Amino acid sequence: MMAPTATALGIRLRVLVTSAGDPAAQVVPDAPVGHHEDLVALRRLASGAQVVTFDHEHVPHEHLLALEGDGAAVRPGSWALRHAQDKLVMRARLDELDVAQPRWRAVGSCAQLVSFADDVGWPVVLKTPRGGYDGKGVRVVRSAVDAGAAQGWFDRAGAEPLLAEEHVDFARELAVLLARSPSGQAAAWPVVETVQVDGVCREVTAPAPGLRDELAAEATRTGLRLAAALGVTGVMAVELFETRDGRVLVNELAMRPHNCGHWSIDGAVTSQFEQHLRAVLDLPLGDPRPRSRWAVMVNVLGGDHRDLYRSYLHVMARDPGVKVHLYGKEVRPGRKVGHVTVSGDDLDDARARARHAADFITGLIDE
Amino acid sequence: MMAPTATALGIRLRVLVTSAGDPAAQVVPDAPVGHHEDLVALRRLASGAQVVTFDHEHVPHEHLLALEGDGAAVRPGSWALRHAQDKLVMRARLDELDVAQPRWRAVGSCAQLVSFADDVGWPVVLKTPRGGYDGKGVRVVRSAVDAGAAQGWFDRAGAEPLLAEEHVDFARELAVLLARSPSGQAAAWPVVETVQVDGVCREVTAPAPGLRDELAAEATRTGLRLAAALGVTGVMAVELFETRDGRVLVNELAMRPHNCGHWSIDGAVTSQFEQHLRAVLDLPLGDPRPRSRWAVMVNVLGGDHRDLYRSYLHVMARDPGVKVHLYGKEVRPGRKVGHVTVSGDDLDDARARARHAADFITGLIDE
Repeated sequence: MMAPTATALGIRLRVLVTSAGDPAAQVVPDAPVGHHEDLVALRRLASGAQVVTFDHEHVPHEHLLALEGDGAAVRPGSWALRHAQDKLVMRARLDELDVAQPRWRAVGSCAQLVSFADDVGWPVVLKTPRGGYDGKGVRVVRSAVDAGAAQGWFDRAGAEPLLAEEHVDFARELAVLLARSPSGQAAAWPVVETVQVDGVCREVTAPAPGLRDELAAEATRTGLRLAAALGVTGVMAVELFETRDGRVLVNELAMRPHNCGHWSIDGAVTSQFEQHLRAVLDLPLGDPRPRSRWAVMVNVLGGDHRDLYRSYLHVMARDPGVKVHLYGKEVRPGRKVGHVTVSGDDLDDARARARHAADFITGLIDE
Repeated sequence: MMAPTATALGIRLRVLVTSAGDPAAQVVPDAPVGHHEDLVALRRLASGAQVVTFDHEHVPHEHLLALEGDGAAVRPGSWALRHAQDKLVMRARLDELDVAQPRWRAVGSCAQLVSFADDVGWPVVLKTPRGGYDGKGVRVVRSAVDAGAAQGWFDRAGAEPLLAEEHVDFARELAVLLARSPSGQAAAWPVVETVQVDGVCREVTAPAPGLRDELAAEATRTGLRLAAALGVTGVMAVELFETRDGRVLVNELAMRPHNCGHWSIDGAVTSQFEQHLRAVLDLPLGDPRPRSRWAVMVNVLGGDHRDLYRSYLHVMARDPGVKVHLYGKEVRPGRKVGHVTVSGDDLDDARARARHAADFITGLIDE
């Protein structure tokens, strides 16, 4: 998704793909095949590049250190990225920085998990510190009996602790998206509202409707402060809980263009993909302002339709103003295979149209 | 420039490039090398494709006929495209359709040219009917002596006549951009104002400032009528003269995404590149409405700077809201190597910012 903007900016991309059929290889001619856990492939990729960056956080920390040791400009750097790769590192660091977040504890056993719940109350949330995404590596534990059922997670983690967090009874979820360059310039998009279903992002509204100005400002300040403190370069997404008593707590960090920013492709003067490239290359950042009053982005998740094209035709015919983005991925149930964005002055209208388009492409509705 | 939108639409492109270093090969992985005048290369390109389309009009007519004979869906088709390939064919057809245009004549000699000027007055414009672009193949002939100096053109044309046109003393130039699909659906963007310097497009403002509604409607109607009458599929640009007495005359036709529509990438809900793909594939067309009150596009022409990147940095830093598009072409004097677009509510501001950015990247100004 960085390819179109790289083209316009005059930047050449080389992208590491896991197979020749990878969606990225459909759009970037220079796409060597290799695995992101293979240091040889990573070194070959980095060779001659001005900057190395990411569209996920799964490159092993030790490989990032090796690339940095080779002299590669890895952005975000291994130290910053650690906070998006390891949730225990992130939680500890946020406490040091006095950033509001859910209560948490590193737990090495079911007994410790129960003890944590004794302090914060049931339910609690158990997370694998590394490698989780889209709800994977996260489970809600509702009781001591439930905790016993999580024994397998502790077994698999071996000597590594897991992360236990209080279950926040939030009013809604928000996200701050920003970019920061090595020279310290930073720019934030408006705070957005996100809706997750089963841990998977379903819908994003920009800006977050009805958000109090002070809370929006506080969330943005927190994001910018974090980006500076962690030495982030590139785009960072800070996922937040808005609590029922009007506070914001940091839920997750991502250091790359993120689903909560896809609205910016059609909806902002500068998209998150353009801004990420500008940031990691230490170019001046672009204007993050929205192009219209509201933008609603709804993910297209894999459903009944294997071939999205036919239902997409219907959506095109029904609503010429909807922007559809397909990712060229094979359709699998629940997989994010595309998204739609609708912009406009009327939030209800934009939301209804975006939801209809996404549901129709997915196959959830047929009229 | 169709590549980004093709990606989002889930459409696979194969593009014929004249060399492996062609800008298109930088962004489309499936880019066989071959010449657009080589029928073997064209047939190989077309093999297995759902549709064959163009980003220029220089594929020989007889090759288009051959591809159509093979059963390829050539869009626009050879018959429609003829009107954008041969200005004499176009002029004759426009007369048949009773479309307002400059007075013209097919001339085979200097004497015939002088005779034409006797009827319409000096100066007159002499054009090669085929192969011209960006002011090439066009000369203004100011007198009988001047006509004698054009003898070389007649010699080179051999038995083929040239096109003589009256020199229109226009108030300004306008353009209608529209798309039409094989099933007849059509959609037009707002009429724009274009500024040409030495036959090369320099600046486009969308919509055309101060254009009377009736004239805008007449221009759009003319474009739509022409598209239907010529059986156009895909994007068509109709370049117009607005005369000092308030009429519009058709100057040129182009049947492909056109420089006068580049503003639509950032400035319209549906860009001309997306619309072209939707049209040639007979998909429902997208909403052509502008995203903001004004959009000003200024071309970046090759100038003193061989490396555009450094001046581009300055532009980025000075104005975070300017959208810069570089084409990955080698810089040569006067060559179109990119463009910039600025959108906003204030026309003077948008125009000043777009001009400054383009001039700075080019190297015409240094502050």
